[in-house]
Amino acid sequence: MTVPAWVPIRDELRDEVPYGAPQIDVPVRLNTNENPYGPSQEAAADIAAAVQEAALELNRYPDREAWALREALAGYLGHGLTAERVWAANGSNEVMQQILQAFGGPGRTAVSFAPTYSMYPEYARNTHTRWVAGRRREDFAIDVAAAVALIEAEQPEVVFLTSPNNPTGTALAPEELRAVLDVAPGIVVVDEAYAEFRRAGTPTALELLDDHPRLIVTRTMSKAFALAGGRLGYLAADAAVVDALRIVRLPYHLSAVTQATALGALRHTDELLAQVDALRETRDETADWLSGRGYDVAASDANFVLFGHFADRHAVWEGLVDRGVLIREVGPEGWLRVSIGTPEEMQAFRAALMEVDPR
Amino acid sequence: MTVPAWVPIRDELRDEVPYGAPQIDVPVRLNTNENPYGPSQEAAADIAAAVQEAALELNRYPDREAWALREALAGYLGHGLTAERVWAANGSNEVMQQILQAFGGPGRTAVSFAPTYSMYPEYARNTHTRWVAGRRREDFAIDVAAAVALIEAEQPEVVFLTSPNNPTGTALAPEELRAVLDVAPGIVVVDEAYAEFRRAGTPTALELLDDHPRLIVTRTMSKAFALAGGRLGYLAADAAVVDALRIVRLPYHLSAVTQATALGALRHTDELLAQVDALRETRDETADWLSGRGYDVAASDANFVLFGHFADRHAVWEGLVDRGVLIREVGPEGWLRVSIGTPEEMQAFRAALMEVDPR
Repeated sequence: MTVPAWVPIRDELRDEVPYGAPQIDVPVRLNTNENPYGPSQEAAADIAAAVQEAALELNRYPDREAWALREALAGYLGHGLTAERVWAANGSNEVMQQILQAFGGPGRTAVSFAPTYSMYPEYARNTHTRWVAGRRREDFAIDVAAAVALIEAEQPEVVFLTSPNNPTGTALAPEELRAVLDVAPGIVVVDEAYAEFRRAGTPTALELLDDHPRLIVTRTMSKAFALAGGRLGYLAADAAVVDALRIVRLPYHLSAVTQATALGALRHTDELLAQVDALRETRDETADWLSGRGYDVAASDANFVLFGHFADRHAVWEGLVDRGVLIREVGPEGWLRVSIGTPEEMQAFRAALMEVDPR
Repeated sequence: MTVPAWVPIRDELRDEVPYGAPQIDVPVRLNTNENPYGPSQEAAADIAAAVQEAALELNRYPDREAWALREALAGYLGHGLTAERVWAANGSNEVMQQILQAFGGPGRTAVSFAPTYSMYPEYARNTHTRWVAGRRREDFAIDVAAAVALIEAEQPEVVFLTSPNNPTGTALAPEELRAVLDVAPGIVVVDEAYAEFRRAGTPTALELLDDHPRLIVTRTMSKAFALAGGRLGYLAADAAVVDALRIVRLPYHLSAVTQATALGALRHTDELLAQVDALRETRDETADWLSGRGYDVAASDANFVLFGHFADRHAVWEGLVDRGVLIREVGPEGWLRVSIGTPEEMQAFRAALMEVDPR
């Protein structure tokens, strides 16, 4: 798609396409790291009841500060966090855009380490932030010495680290994080969208917040909370960093309905997180099975597995689609990413893969 | 508030404050042009039922294109519009930000005519768009010759016109719009947030869309649809202009819950719009009463009235707050804006004003 010449769009956008994975209607969707387990009837009814109560006052603007929601999120995160140190927006997307509006922008630089989440360069483009991508090691871990050297050379206002990383599943060790925090001159964002899926013993960057005021840890309710359709991203940081974000947020950015929905889901935290354990188990089984079939498998702390290599990954992806299984053609050339679904969905994936790529 | 020196916020933001009217808990809130009539029990129950259905699939990402909602909005707007020519986002705020991300930005200029909506310069600031404010006439109408001259001189990529204008209530005549459209080299946005409240005989810019492909008409469900808490802004434009906005929109920007809520409200269009007639009547009565008391009153096609002049408007505003009536200290020096509430709320406003400013 090229925008017609008469439409006065910015030059750098004219040949761009809207971001998004292909939305193909197949029986088994394992392409966007959704949680396959929807809310229970009870959780859905509780969310609806909260929305009905909110609906009677929808003629009024919502709480601009989303205070009750930020308190509930702080309670969920623990680590002594309070509402002043938590911020929320319409998906991690909007959280990241606000971070770059406040701390990035024209004349400023953001650094990340590829392969990583493919939306980051779009956030940078939309906020006119210069984008510099370092490289991860062959095993997708951060090469700490190279990362430190890049940060010292570029002096970026914002560094994005992703742990567990998407699309590789790689988690960062605290000493790797600390090495980056020690040299980064500005904000360091640790994107923990998949944190709840990490393996036993993998720590969270939340532990580092108290000692590192320029650290932002972002989370989402899309994955572990099975709330991708609710669009609720959030972060924990120093209260002064949160206050800075309030300057660039659009007023009333979080609707009363979104606030009620997220609060409703948070009341069912135990139930929703119970499925996370099942997903971690299925993830490990899937990784073992793929290894057993002779694939290279990236060690994953997330709800997906990256595996390869394929001489023609697109043909494999297409073969799976033909068999009703949609996975994601993403990440380094030759690799494919499969989200972790139910055991039945993973069985369908295995059967389809064995047909498409008999070994 | 000044952001502490150690927080690496952009220089131009360091001394800024988060936008928003004071949220003061008083019995009579006439400060943010909310609709005083909430949805009926039936509408609220219908919205909740729609959300409950959506809630069972909240683990899945929402329809990225919000197709059903855009179709319903196109049907509501009429004028032969279709879903391809309608776009929606989280409030007019996000619509406007997307417009400036696509068509404004560094090296580009946006023009408007003050006094007008006070968020526009913030959208420009957040997108690094150069902001130029022309002046309206003493009666708050657009000075067409001056507007044409300013546009010819500045060659702005985006022009914002507001009709009815906020905070003055002034509507634009089609010939004024056409004069601007004839000379504007880029996008012309006509912000019709208050369109449903316009007086009989005042046309809408939707009529000009077919002949002016660079025209965007924005609307909101916050006012006439009494859905301020639902955060749903939208626009009508050429399909190619909508496609350009899709490039800068954050993927899945509209949650499944927001889409269900807005669709639910649209099913109750007749009921919700019935209150608009009552509000227009109360608006005219309020304007007449203020005129009768000797105030200058700006002719209003919206759900608020701007009136003055006061030597010390802040003292009047404060006197009203002390009496439980919150209006807005906004617009040109010496004027105050009162939103139109229920007859009972307007009675409270009148009583309080007579005490604060006996004449």
